[in-house]
Amino acid sequence: MLWGGWRGFTSYFCAMLRNDIICALATPSGMGAIAVIRLSGKGSIALVDGVFNSTNKTKKLIDKASHTVHFGTIKKDGLLLDEVLVTLFKDAKSFTGEESVEISCHGSVLIQNKLLQLLIEKGARMADPGEFTMRAFMNGKMDLSQAEAVADLIAAENDAAHKVALQQMRGGFSKEIAQLREELINFASLIELELDFSEEDVEFANRDHLVQLLTKIDKVLTRLIQSFKVGNVIKNGIPVAIVGAPNAGKSTLLNALLNEERAIVSEIAGTTRDTVEDEIHLGGLSFRFIDTAGLRETTDTVENIGIKRAFEKIEQAHIVLYLYDAANPESDLETHVNMVMEKAGNKSVLVLANKTDRAKAPVAFTNTNISPIAISAKEGLGLDALQDALLTLADTKALSNNQIIVTNSRHYESLNLALAAINQVQDGIEIGLTTDLLAEDVREALRHLGNITGAIEPDRDILGTIFGKFCIGK
Amino acid sequence: MLWGGWRGFTSYFCAMLRNDIICALATPSGMGAIAVIRLSGKGSIALVDGVFNSTNKTKKLIDKASHTVHFGTIKKDGLLLDEVLVTLFKDAKSFTGEESVEISCHGSVLIQNKLLQLLIEKGARMADPGEFTMRAFMNGKMDLSQAEAVADLIAAENDAAHKVALQQMRGGFSKEIAQLREELINFASLIELELDFSEEDVEFANRDHLVQLLTKIDKVLTRLIQSFKVGNVIKNGIPVAIVGAPNAGKSTLLNALLNEERAIVSEIAGTTRDTVEDEIHLGGLSFRFIDTAGLRETTDTVENIGIKRAFEKIEQAHIVLYLYDAANPESDLETHVNMVMEKAGNKSVLVLANKTDRAKAPVAFTNTNISPIAISAKEGLGLDALQDALLTLADTKALSNNQIIVTNSRHYESLNLALAAINQVQDGIEIGLTTDLLAEDVREALRHLGNITGAIEPDRDILGTIFGKFCIGK
Repeated sequence: MLWGGWRGFTSYFCAMLRNDIICALATPSGMGAIAVIRLSGKGSIALVDGVFNSTNKTKKLIDKASHTVHFGTIKKDGLLLDEVLVTLFKDAKSFTGEESVEISCHGSVLIQNKLLQLLIEKGARMADPGEFTMRAFMNGKMDLSQAEAVADLIAAENDAAHKVALQQMRGGFSKEIAQLREELINFASLIELELDFSEEDVEFANRDHLVQLLTKIDKVLTRLIQSFKVGNVIKNGIPVAIVGAPNAGKSTLLNALLNEERAIVSEIAGTTRDTVEDEIHLGGLSFRFIDTAGLRETTDTVENIGIKRAFEKIEQAHIVLYLYDAANPESDLETHVNMVMEKAGNKSVLVLANKTDRAKAPVAFTNTNISPIAISAKEGLGLDALQDALLTLADTKALSNNQIIVTNSRHYESLNLALAAINQVQDGIEIGLTTDLLAEDVREALRHLGNITGAIEPDRDILGTIFGKFCIGK
Repeated sequence: MLWGGWRGFTSYFCAMLRNDIICALATPSGMGAIAVIRLSGKGSIALVDGVFNSTNKTKKLIDKASHTVHFGTIKKDGLLLDEVLVTLFKDAKSFTGEESVEISCHGSVLIQNKLLQLLIEKGARMADPGEFTMRAFMNGKMDLSQAEAVADLIAAENDAAHKVALQQMRGGFSKEIAQLREELINFASLIELELDFSEEDVEFANRDHLVQLLTKIDKVLTRLIQSFKVGNVIKNGIPVAIVGAPNAGKSTLLNALLNEERAIVSEIAGTTRDTVEDEIHLGGLSFRFIDTAGLRETTDTVENIGIKRAFEKIEQAHIVLYLYDAANPESDLETHVNMVMEKAGNKSVLVLANKTDRAKAPVAFTNTNISPIAISAKEGLGLDALQDALLTLADTKALSNNQIIVTNSRHYESLNLALAAINQVQDGIEIGLTTDLLAEDVREALRHLGNITGAIEPDRDILGTIFGKFCIGK
């Protein structure tokens, strides 16, 4: 029903979209062994036929089967541009759900541009960002939340984000929403029926069953909303603040953590990754260090520039590392640690005794809550224990339990609005609200649930916002 | 014969190369809509079969036809890594000439790394730079000069370099060399025969015909060697020096030229190209401005820091632009221009009268050889005339005549050595050298000609040097 719903809407919406032939570079820009240019739209294959010369000239591309690859040359005004491989996707069998072609050429920037120019000359136009995926959505190949997951998948920087995006792309998330929405639609239609017969005071929609369904929806929405906390952490990384007196070794610690990770990453030669500065990946999660630029330049400290700067960092963090020099501990150390712990409130604070390789004796703390982890950032000692502690603090049980996790703030917002409407309906039933007012709240809840998957007509602005975030060629 | 020759050598040489399964990212590194991972080597398809789950499970990939594409998922330890398209190339039908697979995945850096890791775990190894093309060479899919052209093609930054690399990749260059070498081999075998019958004083190899052939080879080699001058310019750009007094507008001119080109390039949205700083592309050629960093920072000048710096630039240039402020000409202008022209010698000097929009009257020169081009770099006036003049000075008639052009310095060197040996043979015949000494010179010439196409066993170091310059994945 849901699918039928937005398929119906699709045909309406299509009128406002162009269904011409789009083309774009699908691989990252720059030089490589090969590059792939993608075309989509009715007539794509015929367009490529016009510029492609197969080594085996017996048949045109248009006569070949879907999902086959053909070697040949592409010429412009008789001049050879490149030797290419052309892959054909016919109609519904493609990613976009329409006739598509992929041209695999030599990975020269010049050739990429020349081929695109030629295709544009022959009638294609440059695709807008996300337009291929938008067409997949418009052609019923995926719902809106699945389309959004494609962008998340490409941008995923850690295992957890990758896992959640894949789960969502394969429909895990929207299936649950769609099911609930369908059940609610059944009730809604019964309630609307009551309105038609309002003079007769009949009750088609069993209120007890409705209350049961609302409780179920309430539970699911609440769980999904709560999962966003984890989802956000997965997507954006866990913010970590490192604070402590000057010369405690904050930047040495950061470098030690970053270097260790880089060494792992660079094991596979030739797959240089664009590591985000000051972010480490542990157990499939990203830990993002806050404001580390300052850490390296200034003598940012609890004592000097004062508590203020450190407190600002703590505010932005989920986890706080308090680092002190065990070989030469600051006076007032315990006071500082206590201040930081107090400021941190519910946030987790790890106290780290650095330079323990040169310390004569461990610092004795009066506060029994303080149990420092002994490390030496310089010598790389105790870093495993620190990493284990960080992972323990990152509460991602939901992830390991294979639960569905919401990572998209647009979904989060819609879920909250839907929950508010559901609660409104629940309250309405309790206080015996009239059917017409109840119907309105039910409609409101349906609208917000539909927004997530695109089951109801999405705003043109929403589509623009969603697909505008994609890279070109996707 | 040539092909037979190096195919024979190939089987010998293969022993020293591994023929295991190699894998690498074939598309540029970084984030994009899609990325392509390439595998090559016997057993590649079976390897991918081990991790790939087709949506249509009736057949294994190994049972599918060559040049077909299959949609499915790749899992690791039961965990989904990505939805992918797998393209199969069976045996001799692939680029490398051996069983190959291309996996097209989502363009996330994380996914790329995870897939490569998985393939390596399953028995593949990361390919060395150029190893795919090296295998194409080893498997007789292309000769050495064609393989080298692949790297040139990918790196080509202008139309001319692109054209020459394509021509060479398609064998235009090596065909000519191979033909000559084959004819010379026929003579060589007759001469060797004479040596066997040396006591009988017979002459199997007609000396007149040999002299004719040598003259032909001499002519071809000389032409190819001469083409290198153009070839080098095509590949590396034409070095241009801008000199003149301070405030003549040198950096404004450079920016005007660069901006005009960038505007053209950026017409195709989303295909940002990595433009080389201070290089403009005109009529398919690159003009490379020398030492422009200094141009912007210092008041580099003929008057101040003195002639020395300007003269150094002129030395490195093929074309010299002398720029002066027409609204406020320097005293001694003509003296300076004369000095620069003298220093330039055979090099082309263009004198440019800048700021002509604000000049009251043109400067009168006594030297009739000085005919300035009137421009205004700031207002963009006269730039077309300047660009036309630059193109006229770049002598690339050979290019427009579709002549074969040598761009590779390794080939240039071999051609020179071959020509020297050919000349030696010519001299030998003239002075009536004994057959055994003649045979030696002929062998020497054959060796150098063979080096170009890899017809004779190339040095392991040579192969390393050639393919080491490739990017990984090619």
